Amino acid sequence: MKVLIAGIDGYLGWPLAQYCAARGHIVAGIDALLRREWVKEVGGQSAIPVYDIETRLDAFEDCYGYRPWFRQGNLLDYVFLRDCLEKFQPDAIVHLAEMPSAAYSMIDPAHTAFTQHNNVIGNLNMLWAIKEVCPTAHLIKLGTMGEYGTPDIDIPEGFFEVEFRGRRDQLPFPRQAGSFYHLSKVHDSHNTLFACKTWGLRSTDIMQGVVFGTRIDEMDGNARLRTRLDFDQCFGTAINRFCCQAVIGHPLTLYGQGRQKRGFLPLRDSMQCLALTIENPPEPGEYRVFNQFEACYSIEELARLVQAAGMELGLNVEIAYYDNPRKEAETHYYNPDREKLLALGYQPHNDIAAEIRIMLADLQQHQTRIQEKQELLIPDIRWDGARYQSQSIASAYLRT
Amino acid sequence: MKVLIAGIDGYLGWPLAQYCAARGHIVAGIDALLRREWVKEVGGQSAIPVYDIETRLDAFEDCYGYRPWFRQGNLLDYVFLRDCLEKFQPDAIVHLAEMPSAAYSMIDPAHTAFTQHNNVIGNLNMLWAIKEVCPTAHLIKLGTMGEYGTPDIDIPEGFFEVEFRGRRDQLPFPRQAGSFYHLSKVHDSHNTLFACKTWGLRSTDIMQGVVFGTRIDEMDGNARLRTRLDFDQCFGTAINRFCCQAVIGHPLTLYGQGRQKRGFLPLRDSMQCLALTIENPPEPGEYRVFNQFEACYSIEELARLVQAAGMELGLNVEIAYYDNPRKEAETHYYNPDREKLLALGYQPHNDIAAEIRIMLADLQQHQTRIQEKQELLIPDIRWDGARYQSQSIASAYLRT
Repeated sequence: MKVLIAGIDGYLGWPLAQYCAARGHIVAGIDALLRREWVKEVGGQSAIPVYDIETRLDAFEDCYGYRPWFRQGNLLDYVFLRDCLEKFQPDAIVHLAEMPSAAYSMIDPAHTAFTQHNNVIGNLNMLWAIKEVCPTAHLIKLGTMGEYGTPDIDIPEGFFEVEFRGRRDQLPFPRQAGSFYHLSKVHDSHNTLFACKTWGLRSTDIMQGVVFGTRIDEMDGNARLRTRLDFDQCFGTAINRFCCQAVIGHPLTLYGQGRQKRGFLPLRDSMQCLALTIENPPEPGEYRVFNQFEACYSIEELARLVQAAGMELGLNVEIAYYDNPRKEAETHYYNPDREKLLALGYQPHNDIAAEIRIMLADLQQHQTRIQEKQELLIPDIRWDGARYQSQSIASAYLRT
Repeated sequence: MKVLIAGIDGYLGWPLAQYCAARGHIVAGIDALLRREWVKEVGGQSAIPVYDIETRLDAFEDCYGYRPWFRQGNLLDYVFLRDCLEKFQPDAIVHLAEMPSAAYSMIDPAHTAFTQHNNVIGNLNMLWAIKEVCPTAHLIKLGTMGEYGTPDIDIPEGFFEVEFRGRRDQLPFPRQAGSFYHLSKVHDSHNTLFACKTWGLRSTDIMQGVVFGTRIDEMDGNARLRTRLDFDQCFGTAINRFCCQAVIGHPLTLYGQGRQKRGFLPLRDSMQCLALTIENPPEPGEYRVFNQFEACYSIEELARLVQAAGMELGLNVEIAYYDNPRKEAETHYYNPDREKLLALGYQPHNDIAAEIRIMLADLQQHQTRIQEKQELLIPDIRWDGARYQSQSIASAYLRT
């Protein structure tokens, strides 16, 4: 299939290009290279060195025998986007080209406005361009499990049957997102559902858990094929950040009591799920929602897993509890469904400890790059709009 | 109370300024005067002549003894907005400053992007500015009953108790809006709820029905105090457009079978409800939703009411059925709640026929202005993105 990856230069986009190519798909990409700018803006850098896009495409060509069709540009530029779809005529479009950080979206009014403008209008342009150019193409839209928040009932995949005052209807599951970034994805979901209903587009809206991991097998030992791995407060997510902390002897930074539960999945599972989604498109006019994660963990459980894996490698890993810069429920019910991808053949990796060991070994090669930026490991962007570093409440040597 | 009206130059904003002043509130306003531009852009004009903003403010001063504090500017300009809140220090902010047309939002990619950018980012700026400048001020945010769509169950006011797989929770009622404009209001609702939960702001989110009417009593016979009345396909809503058609002998244009049901309310009821909301603020941190309408009607019922009122005035009013340019359910269940405003003392006007007679008499004074633009009475903006005029399916002299 012809697969266009919007955001091909990102943490997920770059491995997805390789994963799809290895499965025989014809890959193309667009990217404005903004992730590199945002990480620089917040003072961060990828723990794993990232090559420039041309070098990446050269490496891809060395491996897969063709150079992906690539255009640098922004989804906010409608004419650019429509032109890309006209030229490449994709069967599937994987839309990963959004600003992905909750903390970044909460910095100040300008960052909030930027986040929702960039994400929502970019996705609206994508919907219009598909409608005008390739209305049968399948849009795989990256959302987040964070769209749902933490309701006190099970979380179905997008829709649920409701009984209310004696009548029944099948309705979109209510969204209660916890940041202006997560809300931008909620807005995307509403807009995408409407476009499918109104224009007959077909889309899979992926409610993805938090992805962790430094590699997929396809990257082999080729440094030019490796993907980025951020650890700053904005672009570094929980397990990735913990692993970076562990390899430089920095305490793992739990927000609050660390009892918040979320869905997680390794990078290799994310690739597997996205490929299954691409290869099993919905019907024309169908809007479907997949909850995409391997398993649910509390943040504290994850810290303990990183700690245990670190000990096996001889690292002394401390866990520290910081006052939570976010506003979120710290103890809550959490039971999301995850059936649809399993039905398509998703085989969960199911060995998080092994994955963490691989990550620690990979990241030990790049300790210096993490140490150079270790002031970024304590969050200072707060959900109340203030900006000061969280204080350690307590630290503990937990060796479960 | 000090009431800041964002959008004071609009159909609702201008009468609200007068209604609030008559009740003793201190009124201020901001407006970018964009409604005038949008109506011009689609080729329309207000059936009732609208004076420039300075003349309007002069007339207000003649009536109420003071000139409202007014600044011309755009909510997309955060510094402007924050500065306005700092200078005026409002107790209540009524946010009416959004682009209000479903059809306008569906024209093409640029109009879709403009609509959601203008409305969503403007409201985000409002939330941030309130948080930074006057966090205890009450935000009265104008949403629309159209946010809910037409679910096959009753529509509560914003939230409902759900039982799902044996567990219960109180959740936001799912939104299924029918245009990119209506979706912009859905996005606003999600963002506003989040700001109240996260920052402790207080807000009333008004799910308003379709407003109709040419006047409120406070305008008396003063032409400079009158509000606009649009009849083009973008900015003219159902009853207002029907009345304009009736007074020039143009058939009333029903979309489809006209069996779509919606909530409606006269302009005077909208003012009454908004004033009650202003005068009864929620608690700090509270986000509440009011469904604001007088009664539900099918579009065909409304056409018959206009026809009957027209006959009393000696007008021969024909009703014509056009193929529907929108994509919407034409027969559906519709039973929204409307309890919270009644509990605050809302007294529905409950005489739609009388209101329509007033409208027809007012509009007969301005037949020429409607005739000049009568080519705008047949819609050509279609939800499928095409652009051609709807065809009459059938017309009938219905004299019920």
